[in-house]
Amino acid sequence: MSPRLRHLTTLENLPRETIERLLDRAEALRDACAHGTRKLDVLAGRTVLNLFFEPSTRTRTSFELAARRLGADVINFDLGFSSTSKGEELFDTLHTLEAMHLDAIVVRHKLSGTPDELVRHAMSGVSVINAGDGNRAHPTQGLLDVLTIRQHRPDFDNLTVLICGDIKHSRVARSDIHALHTLGIRQIRLCGPAALMPAAEEFPHCRLFDDFDAAIEGVDAVIMLRLQKERMVAIDLPDEAAYFARYGLDQRRLARAGKGCLVMHPGPINRGIEIAPDVADGAQSRILEQVGNGVFVRMAVLNEVLAR
Amino acid sequence: MSPRLRHLTTLENLPRETIERLLDRAEALRDACAHGTRKLDVLAGRTVLNLFFEPSTRTRTSFELAARRLGADVINFDLGFSSTSKGEELFDTLHTLEAMHLDAIVVRHKLSGTPDELVRHAMSGVSVINAGDGNRAHPTQGLLDVLTIRQHRPDFDNLTVLICGDIKHSRVARSDIHALHTLGIRQIRLCGPAALMPAAEEFPHCRLFDDFDAAIEGVDAVIMLRLQKERMVAIDLPDEAAYFARYGLDQRRLARAGKGCLVMHPGPINRGIEIAPDVADGAQSRILEQVGNGVFVRMAVLNEVLAR
Amino acid sequence: MSPRLRHLTTLENLPRETIERLLDRAEALRDACAHGTRKLDVLAGRTVLNLFFEPSTRTRTSFELAARRLGADVINFDLGFSSTSKGEELFDTLHTLEAMHLDAIVVRHKLSGTPDELVRHAMSGVSVINAGDGNRAHPTQGLLDVLTIRQHRPDFDNLTVLICGDIKHSRVARSDIHALHTLGIRQIRLCGPAALMPAAEEFPHCRLFDDFDAAIEGVDAVIMLRLQKERMVAIDLPDEAAYFARYGLDQRRLARAGKGCLVMHPGPINRGIEIAPDVADGAQSRILEQVGNGVFVRMAVLNEVLAR
Repeated sequence: MSPRLRHLTTLENLPRETIERLLDRAEALRDACAHGTRKLDVLAGRTVLNLFFEPSTRTRTSFELAARRLGADVINFDLGFSSTSKGEELFDTLHTLEAMHLDAIVVRHKLSGTPDELVRHAMSGVSVINAGDGNRAHPTQGLLDVLTIRQHRPDFDNLTVLICGDIKHSRVARSDIHALHTLGIRQIRLCGPAALMPAAEEFPHCRLFDDFDAAIEGVDAVIMLRLQKERMVAIDLPDEAAYFARYGLDQRRLARAGKGCLVMHPGPINRGIEIAPDVADGAQSRILEQVGNGVFVRMAVLNEVLAR
Repeated sequence: MSPRLRHLTTLENLPRETIERLLDRAEALRDACAHGTRKLDVLAGRTVLNLFFEPSTRTRTSFELAARRLGADVINFDLGFSSTSKGEELFDTLHTLEAMHLDAIVVRHKLSGTPDELVRHAMSGVSVINAGDGNRAHPTQGLLDVLTIRQHRPDFDNLTVLICGDIKHSRVARSDIHALHTLGIRQIRLCGPAALMPAAEEFPHCRLFDDFDAAIEGVDAVIMLRLQKERMVAIDLPDEAAYFARYGLDQRRLARAGKGCLVMHPGPINRGIEIAPDVADGAQSRILEQVGNGVFVRMAVLNEVLAR
Repeated sequence: MSPRLRHLTTLENLPRETIERLLDRAEALRDACAHGTRKLDVLAGRTVLNLFFEPSTRTRTSFELAARRLGADVINFDLGFSSTSKGEELFDTLHTLEAMHLDAIVVRHKLSGTPDELVRHAMSGVSVINAGDGNRAHPTQGLLDVLTIRQHRPDFDNLTVLICGDIKHSRVARSDIHALHTLGIRQIRLCGPAALMPAAEEFPHCRLFDDFDAAIEGVDAVIMLRLQKERMVAIDLPDEAAYFARYGLDQRRLARAGKGCLVMHPGPINRGIEIAPDVADGAQSRILEQVGNGVFVRMAVLNEVLAR
């Protein structure tokens, strides 16, 4: 059996067995909750601290719910998002929190690599969980995305998944790619404006597209990314309507995908920019299932790193 | 028996029996706490989420205490008060929260009708409780106000209650009027500057006054409203001292009221603007009793909508 | 036995027996936690409210952890730090909170004396704990500092302690001085730039120094204070490097102190301004022990004021 994780900072290089164990545990927790278990006590007496240097009410709330449903206490350590805590100042904060005997720190930071820096500088047994760092990794999002796909299409070696949008700056895309690749997906396609695409050598096993119509042809799942509005200036397109015309998911394009293609998005969605409202709300949309899976995946991760 | 509420967005059209059941339950909870019960577990394992788009530390804290004293977990979902979430964006937030399996959402929003919109768009069994929407309704405030009156003067069909101040923009006044009317109060009087009075047809069963001295004559309870300072410009009065001279409650005016007239205010009070300090702190003031009743009323409401 | 405290606003005039009882209880709680007790329930059903008018995530978190580890509920009552709540407005807030049946209020305020004002105006059995008021007192910091010293050097009547930095504006220094003096420390030395030193008559039993090299000679513990950067203008020094040259603790100066001299700092530290990084991280540094003791001291204080 692959060794128990003490931290989760990225899905890159994680063994397939570990990822599958986390997905299986998330499923088991989902089943327990479906049968009426409202709250477990496996983490009673443990304290999880949310250390968010970027605002994300949704992700923070998902972690907070996950921790509480396992019986843990949760502290929101709010440094104010104007803080650019890094380097020694950040490590002093880490050591201060360790001295207070916290069990886990859930960290979001705009600098890529911050969670691993915390792991390297940790002096106690505290566990570090990455809730998103720069454009590098968002491992619980990657896990919840593959869990959502697996629930509908467990035959990964037959599947083609398309990720569309600002791949270059997306930690969601990177964690999705790592998880899908490790789980043996047949093909991963990436599509977006040239200025928002990664270097081809970053993901040698992915197929890169500029044309969304070609990219979506026959795929089994499409993951649309949120367009950060400040990125529009980098793209050679006049406005958001033009972006939607070229890279938005509407019913016409969805019809080109494979039968029953899953429609996914990490949220919050920009209706009419990267996705048409009737697609976001349509029968093939798995967006809200993703949210629900997010809580169970985070419970599984907290349970993995904190259980004795 | 009137059916159990699943949501509470307004007191308008609520059956008398339902209102009385909530008041009776609030009393029972108050008695239990007075006899040493610090915390119940009737809502153990349930999660209540505070979704406040307007700041109100007092009301949020009262709901948080109420939920915790019933054993529920509480999440403060802080979107920042600069957010003007409405329409599809708001419903996407709602559906995201529902997907996380919350049990109740306590919402405050500056747009009237927002809580009912949430009820209409809810897809799961989540309960919506209105903590104040625009100038329309603040039902738990209405309930705590009638509870406070009932504790001192249960003979509603003999009572006259005066509400004084900015009636036009007050959700507190509207919820008070609905509750008092449903409970069969003999007479409701409204008094305030012409620019801050509602249209006469909105409350056909209320008596409207411009002269506070005449309005307070013989009343059994007077509810003073907080003056939002930005309203001063709409009123034909030079300053707050002039407002106090015409619409402030001082001892001289209180002496014109009925014997033992209850002095009430939803808080926070503006001393010397709508109420004289010695009246706010005087023997007839029920202002702090209102605050205490607020927690018990909110416990009763949470218990009503969430109990199985 | 000295009477049980109902409030803790300052260490000044507290009997030695009371201080020692709190330190002994903090030690007992530390031992219990070291042996695996994750959470006690002595304060189950009680509610502690953090009322912070100045931001301090570290201190607030330490109190929050302390309260939860004793089984209490914690409410963060966030009025926004722009609020300058004082006088009647502050007391109205106090009375509102009392009406909600809180058990303890942990208050931080920039005006010296605010916690005692709250004690004087409290109408119920609520306990007030000072988490720092102006430049006057920070009693739990004073307790955790003497606890840290006592753990290493219990022979207080043989010890000399130096406090260095902005003594004049430091509530930490004042609470340290009161605690150390009451516990019979042999000598307290104070050192800092003339503009940041207290009047000599304020602490007649302390020795005042301008020259750090002379002050540190042979001391058993040195407590370095954080330099608020806005104080630089009051000091006749060109920049922070000049401050460090005169009042910073580096290895050269530490070598002048007594053997095994404890290095302490209330945090957060300014590396390279009041303390050299290698000293802050060095073998003699007790800075993180102070943080750990902070939680146990606050548990002891909450237990003292709230236990039945």
